[in-house]
Amino acid sequence: MICEIKKQSGVAFLLNKGQRLKVIDPKGEQVSDMVLFNLEDSREKLSSGKTLDFEENLLITTGNFLWSNRSNKMMKIIEDTNGRNDFLLAPCSPETFQIMYDNPDYHPSCFENLYVSLKEHGIEKDDIPTAFNIFMNVQWDMQGNLSVEAPLSKGGDYMILEAQMNLIVALTACSAEDSNNGSFKPIHYEILNQ
Amino acid sequence: MICEIKKQSGVAFLLNKGQRLKVIDPKGEQVSDMVLFNLEDSREKLSSGKTLDFEENLLITTGNFLWSNRSNKMMKIIEDTNGRNDFLLAPCSPETFQIMYDNPDYHPSCFENLYVSLKEHGIEKDDIPTAFNIFMNVQWDMQGNLSVEAPLSKGGDYMILEAQMNLIVALTACSAEDSNNGSFKPIHYEILNQ
Repeated sequence: MICEIKKQSGVAFLLNKGQRLKVIDPKGEQVSDMVLFNLEDSREKLSSGKTLDFEENLLITTGNFLWSNRSNKMMKIIEDTNGRNDFLLAPCSPETFQIMYDNPDYHPSCFENLYVSLKEHGIEKDDIPTAFNIFMNVQWDMQGNLSVEAPLSKGGDYMILEAQMNLIVALTACSAEDSNNGSFKPIHYEILNQ
Repeated sequence: MICEIKKQSGVAFLLNKGQRLKVIDPKGEQVSDMVLFNLEDSREKLSSGKTLDFEENLLITTGNFLWSNRSNKMMKIIEDTNGRNDFLLAPCSPETFQIMYDNPDYHPSCFENLYVSLKEHGIEKDDIPTAFNIFMNVQWDMQGNLSVEAPLSKGGDYMILEAQMNLIVALTACSAEDSNNGSFKPIHYEILNQ
């Protein structure tokens, strides 16, 4: 069953060890921020620092694992038809829009959508780690300059990830103009039972 | 007063808003992992994802700020005589040596030295974020491949950072062979009152 995450919103759900999650960009050029927590003890969670360290690459894609702050494997990327994702930048938050977009008004954000979705699992605002940003296109140069570009994903591109432990997963359809080329779109996902 | 962090060890201390911290590599080619917590509420802490996002660069050096998970400025880098630091990789932990060095035996680690030093401030293992790794030389290429190289710092190189809020600071003299060209050395630090 394919589920839809409406534009600028988020969702949280459980994924058992061995189950696979398919994250789909139905229209193209959309980003989905994902965070993970160990279902048995949510103080164990996704870690960008551990993942970049163990995988030895800024580009996390097919064959790579997502690691926890306790150095355990949380997910394996089985397939990634787009191949460009980001694990450097924190989820967009209300302050992102104030500081980087110079927008003082309320703006939906992945950070809010993640922590609101995760509340029912006892996870709080301050517990949200840097997300794995599926389909997000962050470019770097040799001097280290970073820029957020339009995603390279086309309608129908997807990623399949396999849970390596029982997980709480939160996913968004990204709320930031720069991350999805200025148009807000949904994200689809499906839990595949092996 | 210059304090010494002995090789493969760590320390935690308070730094008030406006005070400056000088971190010195006394012998050259040594790394110091640093984590920061808001003294008034230690759930607010250093965030690599927020810092890379707001500073828009992989290389964090003079003029850059270190940001928290709540999008507040924690420190400003006033001076950095070496100019090469890392904010991608998590502190070396017992698992780093098992997984990346294929060493099943006990090995001191920055992660252990950070959490042991921070215990007295009520901060636990799982609370340790990705550290800002002063003098650490992590190189990348355009394909995203990461490699840990010998630090470029020479004896006497230093960084001066100014606290933007009241902070708990933890600092190490790094324990990982790859990060300091195979020789373990001390780190010096000094709190400069304005």
